[in-house]
Amino acid sequence: MTILPLRLSLLLGCVVALAVPAAAQTGVEVARAYRETHASAIVRDFAEMLAYPNRARDLDDVARAAAYIRDQMRDAGVETRLLTLDGVPPMVFGELRRPGATRTLGLYAHYDGQPVDPSNWTHPPFEPTLYTAAMDAGGQPRDLPMDTEVVDPEWRIYARSAGDDKAPIQAFLSVLRAFRDGGIAPTSNLIFLFDGQEEAGSRRLGDYMEQVRDRVDDVDVWLFCDGPAHQSGRPLLAFGARGSMGMEVTVYGAIRNLHSGHYGNWAPDTGMILARLLSSMKDERGRVLVDGWYDTTEPLGAEAAAALRAMPDWDDELKRELGLVRTEGEPQTLPERLMVPALNVRGMTSGNTGSLARNIIPNTAVAALGIRLVQGNDPAQLRQLIVDHIERQGFRVVADDPDVDTRLRYPLIAKVTGGGGSVAARTPMSDPFVQQVIAAATEAADRAFVEGALVLSPGLGGTLPIALFTDVWRKPAIVVPVANHDNNQHAPDENLRLANLWYGIDLFSEIMTMP
Amino acid sequence: MTILPLRLSLLLGCVVALAVPAAAQTGVEVARAYRETHASAIVRDFAEMLAYPNRARDLDDVARAAAYIRDQMRDAGVETRLLTLDGVPPMVFGELRRPGATRTLGLYAHYDGQPVDPSNWTHPPFEPTLYTAAMDAGGQPRDLPMDTEVVDPEWRIYARSAGDDKAPIQAFLSVLRAFRDGGIAPTSNLIFLFDGQEEAGSRRLGDYMEQVRDRVDDVDVWLFCDGPAHQSGRPLLAFGARGSMGMEVTVYGAIRNLHSGHYGNWAPDTGMILARLLSSMKDERGRVLVDGWYDTTEPLGAEAAAALRAMPDWDDELKRELGLVRTEGEPQTLPERLMVPALNVRGMTSGNTGSLARNIIPNTAVAALGIRLVQGNDPAQLRQLIVDHIERQGFRVVADDPDVDTRLRYPLIAKVTGGGGSVAARTPMSDPFVQQVIAAATEAADRAFVEGALVLSPGLGGTLPIALFTDVWRKPAIVVPVANHDNNQHAPDENLRLANLWYGIDLFSEIMTMP
Repeated sequence: MTILPLRLSLLLGCVVALAVPAAAQTGVEVARAYRETHASAIVRDFAEMLAYPNRARDLDDVARAAAYIRDQMRDAGVETRLLTLDGVPPMVFGELRRPGATRTLGLYAHYDGQPVDPSNWTHPPFEPTLYTAAMDAGGQPRDLPMDTEVVDPEWRIYARSAGDDKAPIQAFLSVLRAFRDGGIAPTSNLIFLFDGQEEAGSRRLGDYMEQVRDRVDDVDVWLFCDGPAHQSGRPLLAFGARGSMGMEVTVYGAIRNLHSGHYGNWAPDTGMILARLLSSMKDERGRVLVDGWYDTTEPLGAEAAAALRAMPDWDDELKRELGLVRTEGEPQTLPERLMVPALNVRGMTSGNTGSLARNIIPNTAVAALGIRLVQGNDPAQLRQLIVDHIERQGFRVVADDPDVDTRLRYPLIAKVTGGGGSVAARTPMSDPFVQQVIAAATEAADRAFVEGALVLSPGLGGTLPIALFTDVWRKPAIVVPVANHDNNQHAPDENLRLANLWYGIDLFSEIMTMP
Repeated sequence: MTILPLRLSLLLGCVVALAVPAAAQTGVEVARAYRETHASAIVRDFAEMLAYPNRARDLDDVARAAAYIRDQMRDAGVETRLLTLDGVPPMVFGELRRPGATRTLGLYAHYDGQPVDPSNWTHPPFEPTLYTAAMDAGGQPRDLPMDTEVVDPEWRIYARSAGDDKAPIQAFLSVLRAFRDGGIAPTSNLIFLFDGQEEAGSRRLGDYMEQVRDRVDDVDVWLFCDGPAHQSGRPLLAFGARGSMGMEVTVYGAIRNLHSGHYGNWAPDTGMILARLLSSMKDERGRVLVDGWYDTTEPLGAEAAAALRAMPDWDDELKRELGLVRTEGEPQTLPERLMVPALNVRGMTSGNTGSLARNIIPNTAVAALGIRLVQGNDPAQLRQLIVDHIERQGFRVVADDPDVDTRLRYPLIAKVTGGGGSVAARTPMSDPFVQQVIAAATEAADRAFVEGALVLSPGLGGTLPIALFTDVWRKPAIVVPVANHDNNQHAPDENLRLANLWYGIDLFSEIMTMP
């Protein structure tokens, strides 16, 4: 894996700049100098934040995490409070008003994390552990740095939410403290929204926004700070995200598991039935065979199409990294493939495998489908296409486990559940506020990496609750990732490369002080 | 579900017969009278035997169970000892020699049971619980009967191994005690072999038989007392069993689970890859599409074919019971389908389903295949056919998880593991000793059920270590099931219907005293 190094010469240049009186420094310089002199403290602060368990379903845990972040934001000079609704995690809401500002920036991140199965982690997910490099690149665990130690930007900190999505929150805090200490004022009003249930679907985000309706209404452009940087290591802005929908299909054999000796060759073979159904849905080249699947995909606009063409072709490197010879939909590249709706098997269960396998014909076989929607797709309509497809394969589609009467009427039965989903979103790159953010991010990327390092993506493959901003509140929203692409998001051993946090500090200091 | 009632008139007839002096009674009459006067005690004895945990892997448990059965056999007048080998359950070996006997019967059963997951059982699997009928037919739990109580033959006793396979052992004990008390001598020498690792594959059964080689060599015909009666409730003799083989196929995507948003539509979809591979193996009608799959199936001999034609067509009843409209290979019937080798998916695993489903593209998908072999099939050869088939679908077949080099060379990789298996076996129905057993069993079935009740099956679908007797020791071996077909063998809530135990006592008393 190749990640561009930060420009070390410039880093050194800034150390020299420390000698210059603060008044002569820009906000960006102040933030960078602060980061360099406080690097160890920032790493320790981040580890402290990561130690707060933050699964959205554990309400006491997320409340503690939210209160901690509220206190940190207050300490950094932001008027911050928790918005609350019954039975869901609180929302951390902060504002920093700048008298006379003619622009309001909205900064969204989320402090909740994906569920964890600690048994699959090298270290407990809420005991942040620093490594000298990525584990799979030979990194070794080490203590958190003391104030006197030099912090290597290639170090990685391992913990749930290190990349997704506490990294931007830590970057905000570092910039705000640098500005506070250095007497720098942002050039925009700032509104902060830190979501506590993004990984659980952000279902109440709209209700929370209603609670601070007038503030939200003021926002000119949202920065949606989530997701990973480009796989090349280059920084990225994205102007959309796919929607997401989960469905589950269960097929049925006999009313109970049957002995595979006494009934094998006669009883319906549920695994095979499911296999035939699934393989009817997608061909070997990755083309979804569900009728109408691609019909509602909106064509890309000219600016998005141009951005797509300009994106780096990183497929070969990615394939090497992931151990792949062939990808779905070749020769289309990954960025191109993210512009069309996806249908994947995200899980399959029937009987058991390995040491738990028994000599049975399982009475059910289940497939969990993961669907990603693009601009123009409607979850309910795609769901219906799948149901129609399953019926066309000869199945009776039901919503609940079939009773015996139903079983005795239909030779093939499929239960289809789930299907509530989120739509995709896209933000016009030509919007003037969007142009200002692009300019600031280009500046930060050019300075931290190389000229032209910033990647502009018409849309991320992943899903963010961004349509709420773009479609409901009708504001432009730009996805601004901070984490390294190999942060093991949603998986065990999630991590953040410190260089990415450093870049986040550069980036947000630039954006918060843009003209 | 219909099960033929025992002939109650005859049952009553036997109660009257109790008044007649013992000297005038046949062995069969003595055994039946004993069973009627001792019914409550037999049920309690059986419950005591079932309370011994008997998973083959728990060596201390099976040793205790074996010692208990040895002591019971000694009490019933059989010279019994435990054969032992390091690291495997003991074999209970008993013999009852009859001076001047011109025939030796071998009686095989197994006292070990399938693994249990107690959380799926209504009652703990080793706390035998009596029900007034099958649970799913509205039966209610009740206390074990006192000596004065009338025992209903429709009662069922629930416990692991109630049906598979302690039932025949209890039947032997009851017959032997009846003979001991009634002064009846069997007409054959009897050799008992009670296996302690049948459910774990009977891997050392051959070695145990070597330990008592001269005794085993004496046997003229083996009764393999295992398996369920016919689904109609009619008693059954079977003259063969299918072999069994388990294999596992793992297909690979990226080296790690990938986020389904960031990579969905581009990363190989392991569930779909497995689905396409599986669906290439068998068509909708249940025909296995693996080249050469049916080529080695030996044709049925004339007598087996005649028996097959004479078997009851119970498919409609069975389909109603199991909630099925259509079976694999229709219009062929279940008995016909058991005469050809089977290929089933006994388990599938990839990612997760239900509440554990996550937004990933799993990096592997696994199918456990269950294969049943018929006469003529060789496990290694069928395994090779499957490997050839997988290669023909474009997969590189490997034996271990592929390294990165292998992954970067082959677009499709399948790991194939397992495949050690057992062959099928068949016993010629024309053998004179086999004919004697058929005659005795016919007599018992006619008396207990209705004229012509006995079903003769050319071969069971399940697998028994019977080829050792037929192919290695070259002795005829007849499968003699006792348990009701709905005994939930290998599943939670295993049970025995008492009427089936009563029939076992009738049957073995008839066979042990046949001319």
